[in-house]
Amino acid sequence: MKLGIIGSTGHINYVMDGLRELPEVRLVGVSAGSNGESIEKLTARAVQEGHSPIVYANYIELLEQAKPDIVAVACYFNDHAKIASEALRRGIHVFVEKPVATTLDDLAMLREAYERSGGTQLAAMFGIRYNPAFYTAWHAVKAGAVGQIRLLHAQKSYRLGSRAEHFKRRETYGGTIPWVGSHAIDWVQWFSGERFETVYASHSTLYNQGNGELETSAQCHFTMSGEVSASVSIDYLRPAQASTHGDDRIRIAGTEGVLEVRDQKVLLINGKENGEQELPLLPKVEIFADFVRQITDGTACLVSAEESFYVTEACLKAVIAADEKRVVKF
Amino acid sequence: MKLGIIGSTGHINYVMDGLRELPEVRLVGVSAGSNGESIEKLTARAVQEGHSPIVYANYIELLEQAKPDIVAVACYFNDHAKIASEALRRGIHVFVEKPVATTLDDLAMLREAYERSGGTQLAAMFGIRYNPAFYTAWHAVKAGAVGQIRLLHAQKSYRLGSRAEHFKRRETYGGTIPWVGSHAIDWVQWFSGERFETVYASHSTLYNQGNGELETSAQCHFTMSGEVSASVSIDYLRPAQASTHGDDRIRIAGTEGVLEVRDQKVLLINGKENGEQELPLLPKVEIFADFVRQITDGTACLVSAEESFYVTEACLKAVIAADEKRVVKF
Repeated sequence: MKLGIIGSTGHINYVMDGLRELPEVRLVGVSAGSNGESIEKLTARAVQEGHSPIVYANYIELLEQAKPDIVAVACYFNDHAKIASEALRRGIHVFVEKPVATTLDDLAMLREAYERSGGTQLAAMFGIRYNPAFYTAWHAVKAGAVGQIRLLHAQKSYRLGSRAEHFKRRETYGGTIPWVGSHAIDWVQWFSGERFETVYASHSTLYNQGNGELETSAQCHFTMSGEVSASVSIDYLRPAQASTHGDDRIRIAGTEGVLEVRDQKVLLINGKENGEQELPLLPKVEIFADFVRQITDGTACLVSAEESFYVTEACLKAVIAADEKRVVKF
Repeated sequence: MKLGIIGSTGHINYVMDGLRELPEVRLVGVSAGSNGESIEKLTARAVQEGHSPIVYANYIELLEQAKPDIVAVACYFNDHAKIASEALRRGIHVFVEKPVATTLDDLAMLREAYERSGGTQLAAMFGIRYNPAFYTAWHAVKAGAVGQIRLLHAQKSYRLGSRAEHFKRRETYGGTIPWVGSHAIDWVQWFSGERFETVYASHSTLYNQGNGELETSAQCHFTMSGEVSASVSIDYLRPAQASTHGDDRIRIAGTEGVLEVRDQKVLLINGKENGEQELPLLPKVEIFADFVRQITDGTACLVSAEESFYVTEACLKAVIAADEKRVVKF
């Protein structure tokens, strides 16, 4: 199978890591995705890993001339939907950085391209699902560890560090809720299996250290089917002195127990044992390899196209709720 | 000074514990506060601690005949405001269980009685402020440990256990947001020093194990002055197998650091040290003794009357938001 990579801005490491266990996939071409985007890091990494892709002047040339079976798209965030749609219209499978769109119009365009493509496949880079702690937690919850889920709280906390220019304008960035928060918003629907009903949210650009329109903090409150509710806390306030870049967490309270992911551990209290138990972690699975196996073997990828769209819709509605200070319905 | 205790339903242990270090305060009388309320536990505890109060037939007789300087009120929650108001109208200082009222009308009545009383003092039983971990955390935050506060998330999680009848009707109970959640709602304004601007909330009575109208889970989302936001998660889903009754937490993210209270520990990451540090805990202070010293010595009690009212208002507006599924303004 032939693979093209468009853009070098998002989590292209998911692709490069996955390629190591996919001898049947050959990286045939790379290009920038967005105007002004550098792909130096991508080409350097590709060479380092023993690939020798052709560098195309732009993504249309890559799609037309390299004729890949699969493309990975990870450029400036507002270009994801347009480029993914171009690929789908050519019957090319798409592994695309989240959020898959930064406006509801772009999301509708992408959904339509997907539906018309007749079986061409898409997954968003919700790679933290495959993090051993989250992956283990999800399997435990699906096996009934907490009974009926009633309440969820998810957290994304990042170091701000130094941010490139496209983070500083809403137009190219899309907002902190879709960029950082989309993982947490994904988790609450993925763990609960419920549908979003309403969202209320708030966000603030204060104290963003000169990062223009980038929101430094945000919170979302989702009501879901079955009277389940979920809150999401998102910030770039993690101090530089912290031991890791991110502090990803989820707490899931159900009728039979409470499960948490925190510090890469899975902690569970339920009726099976007294006190808190730490679950042994499942081995790591590569997200890109999982997506490719869906194409080659027909095994379902953990991230479906429908979820990729639905979580993006939830993120964009949360941004509207925060901007307009009102409850937005689904 | 003469003390009366009205009711035996809430945290009367705060009073009994405080009395041990208040030789100048004499427990002169006790009575029930609500129709059908038993005060057997209270009288037994009083005798056990060496007190010999007169038992009055009702709280009016206690107020009129024992003529206490201070009363502690902790009966069925819908009677707090009425009884506290009766005491204030007689110039009697009031230490009252939270929520201080279960309706906005009752809260307005209590505020008016307080304002007209001309210096009679009141504090709500926000006793968790005096828990060493929360007390230490608050002092650290006030000393600048996290810089400007941007985001807060507070959690109350309790075992459901077996609940008395007055928990099962909204009329007598007031709701899980005011009863359990009021602590967490208090913390977010106490730590941040910000004013509430809006609240959105949700709650559910599903899976409440036959407890009538008692909500088993709730979440609140407050927007506050200075574009600060605060979420609060409340549940009765803590498994019986957990090591403690409650799992109280707060996480406070600011421009200079992140501080958490969890498992009775205070954990801080900021620019002062690499990685996470655990702060040594300050010694325990007794809330009732702090309130009495405000009367006798003029030192400010950590819980002011104004905050007691304001947090109750926030709780009751959150209940309205949850019941009516809308954003409520302050």
